Amino acid sequence: MARIVMKFGGTSMAGMERIRHVAERVKREVEAGHEVAVVVSAMAGETDRLVQMCREAAPLYDPREYDVVVASGEQVTSGLLAITLQGMGVKARSYMGWQLPIRASGHVSALIEDIDVAVLDRAFAAGGVAVIPGFQGVTGEGALATLGRGGSDTSAVALAIAMKADRCDIYTDVDGVYTTDPRIVPRAAKLDLVTYEEMLELASVGAKVLQTRSVGLAMRFNMPLKVLSSFEDRPGTLIAGEEAVEESNMERNIITGIAHDLNEARITLRGLPDRPGAVAAIFRPLAAANINVDMIVQSVARAGEPSDLTFTVPTASLPETVAELETIKDAAGFTDILTDTDVVKISAVGVGMRSNAGIAAKMFDTLAERGINLLAITTSEIKVSVLIPEAYTELAVRVLHTAFGLDQERVA
Amino acid sequence: MARIVMKFGGTSMAGMERIRHVAERVKREVEAGHEVAVVVSAMAGETDRLVQMCREAAPLYDPREYDVVVASGEQVTSGLLAITLQGMGVKARSYMGWQLPIRASGHVSALIEDIDVAVLDRAFAAGGVAVIPGFQGVTGEGALATLGRGGSDTSAVALAIAMKADRCDIYTDVDGVYTTDPRIVPRAAKLDLVTYEEMLELASVGAKVLQTRSVGLAMRFNMPLKVLSSFEDRPGTLIAGEEAVEESNMERNIITGIAHDLNEARITLRGLPDRPGAVAAIFRPLAAANINVDMIVQSVARAGEPSDLTFTVPTASLPETVAELETIKDAAGFTDILTDTDVVKISAVGVGMRSNAGIAAKMFDTLAERGINLLAITTSEIKVSVLIPEAYTELAVRVLHTAFGLDQERVA
Repeated sequence: MARIVMKFGGTSMAGMERIRHVAERVKREVEAGHEVAVVVSAMAGETDRLVQMCREAAPLYDPREYDVVVASGEQVTSGLLAITLQGMGVKARSYMGWQLPIRASGHVSALIEDIDVAVLDRAFAAGGVAVIPGFQGVTGEGALATLGRGGSDTSAVALAIAMKADRCDIYTDVDGVYTTDPRIVPRAAKLDLVTYEEMLELASVGAKVLQTRSVGLAMRFNMPLKVLSSFEDRPGTLIAGEEAVEESNMERNIITGIAHDLNEARITLRGLPDRPGAVAAIFRPLAAANINVDMIVQSVARAGEPSDLTFTVPTASLPETVAELETIKDAAGFTDILTDTDVVKISAVGVGMRSNAGIAAKMFDTLAERGINLLAITTSEIKVSVLIPEAYTELAVRVLHTAFGLDQERVA
Repeated sequence: MARIVMKFGGTSMAGMERIRHVAERVKREVEAGHEVAVVVSAMAGETDRLVQMCREAAPLYDPREYDVVVASGEQVTSGLLAITLQGMGVKARSYMGWQLPIRASGHVSALIEDIDVAVLDRAFAAGGVAVIPGFQGVTGEGALATLGRGGSDTSAVALAIAMKADRCDIYTDVDGVYTTDPRIVPRAAKLDLVTYEEMLELASVGAKVLQTRSVGLAMRFNMPLKVLSSFEDRPGTLIAGEEAVEESNMERNIITGIAHDLNEARITLRGLPDRPGAVAAIFRPLAAANINVDMIVQSVARAGEPSDLTFTVPTASLPETVAELETIKDAAGFTDILTDTDVVKISAVGVGMRSNAGIAAKMFDTLAERGINLLAITTSEIKVSVLIPEAYTELAVRVLHTAFGLDQERVA
């Protein structure tokens, strides 16, 4: 007998037919003798609809009341799944975030502080399944709180940790984590095992399978995650610590995957004076405005002469960034602000990179051979990222996928 | 300064434009210096949609989980109204039933036990408006509970009583209580003042302005109710105790209104044996099955000979009633069960009736003159009801409205 959390996303909960399908999956685990808590998202599209109504109500809506409105989507699906399970003869009951409680701080993108699982322990002891709305909690003042978009993944992982679950299964509309986007590279292969760090890097550069926050949380508590398809019966991808890689004994590629991220915008500041603290004078106000600066390149200039500074920010932050830069332009001394959103960040990720020099070099060579110009470069211990013109996205992903030996053998 | 509860129904809350209109109404009362609590329904159609999903989830759905699902509709509108009010510069906050709390017992048609208004008193002291979802409460075990269809009227009245409000204003899609259905009688007049008892009788016989439960509760605590239009600025109808009628000094008709109710079905049992307890043997099992028997007529028979028994039940209960009667048929000794749903109950209601003999006689005469056959009759202290063939509904309502002097003078 294991204790497991099963999490189902919005597309898995979209409509009664799919909820019935989810209930059948849950029933199977219960019949296998497991203790099961199910975390559910709102029906696909519902949260968007509720957010839109809040915006219409007032452009600067109160975060507290926003949470009251949007938390309702998961409340509905939890109740419906509990009813459906009961209709199939499975003892099930829903528990809202405020009923357990799931204590959280803040609004709109609240953080989970702790989860009281005493009620769940009693439910499991009595042979029951617990259905819990994702994305929500309750503040110290007793107000509803939501965790931010994609927060249900985090709810599931936090609950698994609090429950001391054996694992947390994330059911979604893809059947696992792939070496790259299969829409670009048909030979992309599903990975059996990805480490937390690799998943974090892949997620942060565009692989949208799991919310980054939930992977970080799972890593901190070493909670094994499994990404599975809601719609098909396939093994899925295990996300675990590096010891799982060592134990698995499997031959592994140095590179785990190639990701691409179109949500980057490039900003170039022209004519930045060569004086101490010139760069800091630019990034300090951006940091204060909560703008995430990512890749940074400073052109080499002769001492005493002005230079150019290039960096990237999330495309969504571009207008805000430019506005911020305009206010400091005179003080900082640069002459022009150039922006470019037609760029893409391509990343190669893999824990094997640590012990293999030359990954970056191989990546640059592969792209150079195709005449692809690198606009910026960043590296971390397990990742190399390059910024290139957006038009080369598919080509770059494809040639790197092949170069790093990730192409799957086609079955004849 | 007064302390008031304003309640808005589903049509008043259907969409952001209408919610904005509601917020303007609320703002006006706040600016007049009043302490305001607003009770809201779900958007029109939303509760039906949620109920339908519960039914699809499982035909015999769990009442506890049904309440989790359907309580979400009012949660959404409360949050949206609070946001809208804030956007207009009105200090507003929503309080869910479980947050106050509104303690209730049972599920699906739970009863309100008490309401803690300490939080609201603090909100009013700080100049704030409280927005409260109607229709919901929380049980002693901390589960969500809903009050049954139309329960938001009851929420509003119960809250007004707990808050010691000066009055409870019910905003709806009609602008008050009329002497009869204006769709049948264009000369129907809006009433300025109706007593609780009259309203109860009118509501119980088809005038669907207010939920009966809410009127009964208001009467018990002598809480003045006002029925007003959400969409037009008109005086509305005050519902209060008889002392208000006495104080008003207005000339009042003996009859306040004529109502009709199509939700009655007639059942006739043929050949009932003439023996002690024969009738009780029929009504006892129906009462046990929670079937509401209304009008009863027993045909006069010669001693020792079988007679016929006619009575009415709500049309919705007809299948269940017939099934129940089939099981007792042999023991009770009647020979046939005849049913008829093509009937209507027409009622004349008015507190003035008490001191005026001859109301029933005038009613029978008026209908007889038009050749309308009376199938059954019941009277109470302030009401006379007759059951007639459904085809005569409009004719009967019209002639009675005229006969009792209720026709409004037409403005030339």
